[in-house]
Amino acid sequence: MLSKNKIKFIHSLNRKRTRENKKLFLVEGNKLVLEAITSKLPLKLLVATSDFYELNELDCNIAEEVVECSAEELKKTSMLQTPQQAMAVVHMPNNVLHLDQLTNQLSVALDFVQDPGNLGTIIRIADWFGIKHLLCSTDTVDCYNPKVIQASMGAILRVKIHYLNLEAILDNARNSQLPVYGTFLEGKNIYQSTLSSNGILVMGNEGNGISPAISDKIKHKIHIPSFAIGGYGSESLNVATAAAICCSEFRRRTSD
Amino acid sequence: MLSKNKIKFIHSLNRKRTRENKKLFLVEGNKLVLEAITSKLPLKLLVATSDFYELNELDCNIAEEVVECSAEELKKTSMLQTPQQAMAVVHMPNNVLHLDQLTNQLSVALDFVQDPGNLGTIIRIADWFGIKHLLCSTDTVDCYNPKVIQASMGAILRVKIHYLNLEAILDNARNSQLPVYGTFLEGKNIYQSTLSSNGILVMGNEGNGISPAISDKIKHKIHIPSFAIGGYGSESLNVATAAAICCSEFRRRTSD
Repeated sequence: MLSKNKIKFIHSLNRKRTRENKKLFLVEGNKLVLEAITSKLPLKLLVATSDFYELNELDCNIAEEVVECSAEELKKTSMLQTPQQAMAVVHMPNNVLHLDQLTNQLSVALDFVQDPGNLGTIIRIADWFGIKHLLCSTDTVDCYNPKVIQASMGAILRVKIHYLNLEAILDNARNSQLPVYGTFLEGKNIYQSTLSSNGILVMGNEGNGISPAISDKIKHKIHIPSFAIGGYGSESLNVATAAAICCSEFRRRTSD
Repeated sequence: MLSKNKIKFIHSLNRKRTRENKKLFLVEGNKLVLEAITSKLPLKLLVATSDFYELNELDCNIAEEVVECSAEELKKTSMLQTPQQAMAVVHMPNNVLHLDQLTNQLSVALDFVQDPGNLGTIIRIADWFGIKHLLCSTDTVDCYNPKVIQASMGAILRVKIHYLNLEAILDNARNSQLPVYGTFLEGKNIYQSTLSSNGILVMGNEGNGISPAISDKIKHKIHIPSFAIGGYGSESLNVATAAAICCSEFRRRTSD
């Protein structure tokens, strides 16, 4: 049975401040919960129906606390529209980043990405393209926001996400000769640009793109050209769409 | 002033059946309304504040009916969270499609795409990459759904969208030797595939991909390879993300 206190505790994780204080976040839905179980992150609490425990042959040491409840109780507690059989409270990873971890690989940085759906989609893209580290400006939307977690489709459990001073890390990158790329309307055609297998690719805010302060740190300004007929078309691509195309293009070059 | 009847009429356009019967749809927000005005589609009704009319120097023959109202009235009528100064009711285009219109260009087809945000994003991608025709299976979400229109960011006013029997059109394409591509987990690496400058690219449903009946019609099965470390990563990409990467790759080849 799910006590009132447990329900209150689970709901409290909808608030960013609570999540940060407790270093916990909530994952919902059978698929995501199973991914959380097989991930390296320890589970504080697992709440599921008896069917879920039996079907997946889970025992009671899978989480610090294991609660069995009815489908009805779960439905009442859940924030999802489609009824599911499980939810889990997961300990946040303690991701520490040193710049030398980034030197031999491609990483993605986000400058004030606001929309949870966009961040979740970008995490999923990073996971697909084998990008280990996602660097977020401190004003980027919280990656443990439930909408981000759902949109990431479990990728949040694998990609290492760091909230940090983006200006400082890009300064360090420059000093270490790590190439820094960013997308700009006036950038060079990405298909005709030289792209390295390592570096940091910066993507900007939905409405305003990359901020001037961050822009100053970016040596390689690239652009996805439009093929709109007669130049009459959309002004820009969605930031997650642009991130997907850029990551694909970086990876394609190294897979040749 | 905005009469009760007008408000009722505007709200009625939230229903797919009403939109289809009246062949009308609603666009909201200053930017989208201005795009609707400059588009080729005739406006049934324009509702805006006096500021909006003055700032944009609009006269009263810009739509069949022009109504001035207060910001307050507009806010009450609007479905948007952020207050705006204008909304417009637009006549649906009467898009007629003959297969020979498709022979010399790349088109995109959607097989049962359900999520309005995904469809809107795909319309915006099509617009960016100069894809004139988007072919949708009849069970794909309605493109005049308000969420689709918002996510398309005005691209809905430019890309020609056709709801049709996808199986039949793909049969015709094969008979006309028009190449048909589709994304499949077991498809050939897209980066190593031969891609033509014309053809139809099919994208499938969010959960199930391309249906077996449509799959049978697709000669060129392609796949965006994952670069996940140790093969341990996301199972798939979001359909709009995959569409973006495929369109980019088709266009890159022709821009060389």
